[in-house]
Amino acid sequence: MDIADRRKADPAHWRLAAAIRALSMDAVEAANSGHPGMPMGMADVATVLFSKHLKFDASAPNWFDRDRFVLSAGHGSMLVYSLLHLTGYEQMSLEQIKNFRQWGAITAGHPEYGHAEGVETTTGPLGQGIATAVGFAIAEEAMRAQYGADLCSHKTWVIAGDGCLMEGISQEAIGLAGMQKLKNLIVLWDNNDITIDGRVSLSDSTDQLKRFEASGWRVLACDGHDAADIDRALSDAASGKDDRPVFVSCKTIIGYGAPKKQDTSGAHGSPLGAEEIAATRAAYGWDYGSFVIPADILDEWRAIGAKGRAAREAWNARVDASAERDEFARRISGAVSDKLAPTIAALKDQAVASKPKVATRKASEMVLEVVNPELPETIGGSADLTGSNNTKTKDLGVFSAENRKGRYINYGIREHGMAAAMNGIWLHGGFRPYGGTFMCFTDYARGAMRLSALMGLPVVYVMTHDSIGLGEDGPTHQPVEHLAMLRATPNTMTFRPCDVIETAEAWEIALSSETTPSVLALSRQNLPTLREDAGENLTAKGAYVLREASAEAQVILMATGSEVEIAVAARDMLEAQGVPTRVVSVPSMELFRDQPGDYRKEVLPKGPVRIAIEAAIRQPWDWLLLGERGREKKAGFIGMTGFGASAPAPVLYKEFGITAEATVAEARRLLD
Amino acid sequence: MDIADRRKADPAHWRLAAAIRALSMDAVEAANSGHPGMPMGMADVATVLFSKHLKFDASAPNWFDRDRFVLSAGHGSMLVYSLLHLTGYEQMSLEQIKNFRQWGAITAGHPEYGHAEGVETTTGPLGQGIATAVGFAIAEEAMRAQYGADLCSHKTWVIAGDGCLMEGISQEAIGLAGMQKLKNLIVLWDNNDITIDGRVSLSDSTDQLKRFEASGWRVLACDGHDAADIDRALSDAASGKDDRPVFVSCKTIIGYGAPKKQDTSGAHGSPLGAEEIAATRAAYGWDYGSFVIPADILDEWRAIGAKGRAAREAWNARVDASAERDEFARRISGAVSDKLAPTIAALKDQAVASKPKVATRKASEMVLEVVNPELPETIGGSADLTGSNNTKTKDLGVFSAENRKGRYINYGIREHGMAAAMNGIWLHGGFRPYGGTFMCFTDYARGAMRLSALMGLPVVYVMTHDSIGLGEDGPTHQPVEHLAMLRATPNTMTFRPCDVIETAEAWEIALSSETTPSVLALSRQNLPTLREDAGENLTAKGAYVLREASAEAQVILMATGSEVEIAVAARDMLEAQGVPTRVVSVPSMELFRDQPGDYRKEVLPKGPVRIAIEAAIRQPWDWLLLGERGREKKAGFIGMTGFGASAPAPVLYKEFGITAEATVAEARRLLD
Repeated sequence: MDIADRRKADPAHWRLAAAIRALSMDAVEAANSGHPGMPMGMADVATVLFSKHLKFDASAPNWFDRDRFVLSAGHGSMLVYSLLHLTGYEQMSLEQIKNFRQWGAITAGHPEYGHAEGVETTTGPLGQGIATAVGFAIAEEAMRAQYGADLCSHKTWVIAGDGCLMEGISQEAIGLAGMQKLKNLIVLWDNNDITIDGRVSLSDSTDQLKRFEASGWRVLACDGHDAADIDRALSDAASGKDDRPVFVSCKTIIGYGAPKKQDTSGAHGSPLGAEEIAATRAAYGWDYGSFVIPADILDEWRAIGAKGRAAREAWNARVDASAERDEFARRISGAVSDKLAPTIAALKDQAVASKPKVATRKASEMVLEVVNPELPETIGGSADLTGSNNTKTKDLGVFSAENRKGRYINYGIREHGMAAAMNGIWLHGGFRPYGGTFMCFTDYARGAMRLSALMGLPVVYVMTHDSIGLGEDGPTHQPVEHLAMLRATPNTMTFRPCDVIETAEAWEIALSSETTPSVLALSRQNLPTLREDAGENLTAKGAYVLREASAEAQVILMATGSEVEIAVAARDMLEAQGVPTRVVSVPSMELFRDQPGDYRKEVLPKGPVRIAIEAAIRQPWDWLLLGERGREKKAGFIGMTGFGASAPAPVLYKEFGITAEATVAEARRLLD
Repeated sequence: MDIADRRKADPAHWRLAAAIRALSMDAVEAANSGHPGMPMGMADVATVLFSKHLKFDASAPNWFDRDRFVLSAGHGSMLVYSLLHLTGYEQMSLEQIKNFRQWGAITAGHPEYGHAEGVETTTGPLGQGIATAVGFAIAEEAMRAQYGADLCSHKTWVIAGDGCLMEGISQEAIGLAGMQKLKNLIVLWDNNDITIDGRVSLSDSTDQLKRFEASGWRVLACDGHDAADIDRALSDAASGKDDRPVFVSCKTIIGYGAPKKQDTSGAHGSPLGAEEIAATRAAYGWDYGSFVIPADILDEWRAIGAKGRAAREAWNARVDASAERDEFARRISGAVSDKLAPTIAALKDQAVASKPKVATRKASEMVLEVVNPELPETIGGSADLTGSNNTKTKDLGVFSAENRKGRYINYGIREHGMAAAMNGIWLHGGFRPYGGTFMCFTDYARGAMRLSALMGLPVVYVMTHDSIGLGEDGPTHQPVEHLAMLRATPNTMTFRPCDVIETAEAWEIALSSETTPSVLALSRQNLPTLREDAGENLTAKGAYVLREASAEAQVILMATGSEVEIAVAARDMLEAQGVPTRVVSVPSMELFRDQPGDYRKEVLPKGPVRIAIEAAIRQPWDWLLLGERGREKKAGFIGMTGFGASAPAPVLYKEFGITAEATVAEARRLLD
């Protein structure tokens, strides 16, 4: 059916969709940058979705029980911006649309969470949206199980493109969602057969319907330019007729209606140009100027934006009538539980008294064992390393299709999918997710971990086996550059606690965080309890004096995690040699950097030799060793300069020269 | 069939396989660490593979036309070490087996390329093996197309576990291999239904046969403990009856024969213990002591290890008789072409004369346009950003099932799969691969990029759009921490050239590298030609004086890539103000670090104010700003402290304060 026939066949639908298309073309043209083809191709599907299926109220973008809409193909950002404007989201003025991709506008090149209400998650790096959506759907199931369908019952809709489906993370998402039977998750595939380099067949021949079916999804298909057919498929998808998540292939034409560029990669990622836009307007029968939406069409869209109001008011009434109203409100607000601080304090008191010698991964488990029963909002998991990451506590129960009240997720061997799902769980609201893997596999999860930081989501990464201290598994499993990576990443708190006290303090900070993700780098090997006081949360200062020098310090030893024990041993040796030596524990460089200058100078005064000890790369230490302006003159580093090796951990520490003896020798050399 | 019946049914096979099982149990027990279950489960499949199908000659581990064997489930390293020992690889002595996982042994916890001959690639991080194997298979097809089946005709066999198949990278590999119709790639799935956390059903319900079929694979299945059935399936797989890669489900029992632990995750990752080992020996009918292989069984295995000799000798004869013998030998040796240096020199001469103002991504294309026709070993590609990465040159042709002589690979939207495939292409021999994506998606490729560094493979990553300079695509696409990540990674050369000359020099170094991967961080935006001389490869020094001060320098400005232009502008302003200012271009920190101390002091003498300018995080600069020992006192940094934003690039540079004016102001402040 050609475009003229489409227009005639369903004019009421056509004009609604044309408004999206026109705004998208115009905004990309004005910015002289952007992706018009995807919004033009998916405008029909999006129109049917928003007008007939999506549960939302544009006047209350953060209504908890709304359906979530995730544009996984984030480059098509003008699709969502157009929809938000047309349906009446207050922030999304026409002015914002006109300032698409400009400094200070909320209409960033790719949808950025926190810029515009209605953007549920940041997308752009392909595949993140679909994988984050799995987290939304998990959280929805879990909240429904805890509070009932009256308070939580909604769907997560995703629009994904071929790029999303080729990215490996999509398979992790698909596998997890299929196994978990997330029937309220619906993925609409923009099946336009075009990637940036040309037709999909240049790089892929996957039968996507079969692939999704293989992982336990129900699959449907529709003509993505036929409103009735789209409505049929979406109705079927939303019917919940069985317990599988649903994948809908929407056959579309990229840049639909642009006479020269449609159905080519030329429509994908650059402005159409004035001439092509004029021709497209003609093909659409859209006789209005740039950025002009006729009042009657805008009214229709605004009515669509308002149609969820009654449902929202009914939900408000149910919440008000609920006996669990206050706790439910706390949960969905993300507010920190007032039970956290006393629980942590009690554990610290106990640890100071009993001085356990345990790996910090075990210390982390000890913390979780007392915290999880008090904080129903925690939802834990591991990428198939539960026994190694020590992430599962006795009370949690396993989250599954049969037990939605379980709070432990077997994420499978899917680090990237886990990280993205955690982002989605937090974004959905109601839970504080944490998840574990080996520190080295930060590499696998990086894409989603960066989005935790960029979006400002206080999820917690439990990264155990954090150095050569893991021993025999060898260099593929031994992080050396990962602390540097994490510390280089903006808005990420990297903790490397040295004992059970610091581990408890790090957890307290992580679970109190509102806008910053935390990474806990934890040891495989046992470590002594070094802290002698349980009062103040000293980890919150980032670095502090753990052992004072017997007189004015000639040497300051700085260390983190498993190397603090070495620093303390080296201090004892130096003190025995008559060299007053201070030990500074540095559980978080980020938090130390945020301290007032006076405190920093107090901990690291000018003058003494400074040596840092960490079984990792030196790079992030230079700042602490040398001072930001380079005013410290004598600095040394005891750590790694290359990859590790496979051998028992004590052998590796000795062979790589990360010992108290080497520290003492370096201190003496610098003192001379 | 129970184990006693298995033994009776095929005793000749049984005892060969039992030798693998016994060595694996014993070595893990001796190390008190490791993974016995997988080798015990896959011993039957491996025995049939090595004895009846794999083309190899243990006396010549690096014979070019051997079949490649990749243990993607790398934790089962004792499987491959046992096979190498039994078949007679000289390095793999019984002593090495006994020293499994010990310091200095070649028997690392996970198979490490370069430690033991016969280990084709480093595995352990799951999914890497299967994805690297795709590169092996691509290279085999490409070499066969160029030199004929007489010189190159072999298969790539992979053993992969459930972990490999759950990792997202596996989908990227599967999709690429299916589309490319790599019929000589055969994946044997250790289908034992167990992961670390328990049964696979805890975390996955994927129908793997259907999934592989959906991506264009031929799928087969066998009983992984029935030698005849395994042989049937492997014969079918190897038959090449159609042009699809082949996936074989081998139904196995993890820890096969260990009475208490088999078929449980308890057999996966820890020693069985003396008692269980004794019971397992009894079940096997294996009456020999620890590490004892009876001579007759060892003889049989050694005969298997020698059976490829005739084929190898025939191949040698064919190579000797080939007219292309010398070039073929150069190609498979990886030796650098003597055409590279003059080609680069000519381009540099031309550029110094014509002073083009082009983006360094475009400069990179200019280099490739002259290099690719001269170096038949280059094989390029992009993860679906060909036009943006400027990676495709006119002469290359597209590698596909229809055109195996094409040297450009459309990797699809698969950054991780691309990086792993490039590792495999280099490891196979015959080619120097390079591939492009956006710098920010280093995140997606990290897992395989780390293995490039760890294995020491001189592959080239063409990472364009390397800063906020990409503009409107916004913070999801703007790297700020990625240079720090790369510079923290051991054995990785990170180049950020400032103009066409440095870009050509970086390419010269990258294409001459023997054991280090290169990352070229390239601009989207146009940059002037700043270098005024084309002689020596100054990039090889890592940093050098680009503009000398008019008198003894009071200020040294250091910069990389697109910010060198800013440094030069700031210098002009400072000089106009009477402040003698030197500009140091720093295309590679790693190479500068390797320079003699005298040279480093010459470039960065003590005394002057030092300011670094880079549109990224400061972390890696501290070393250059402050000196390793903190002897430099006045240091400043002009760069990023957080994520970027969506706006045109010039606006971003201004808003984030990365300008010549800000540099001048900082210099004046530090001079006071």
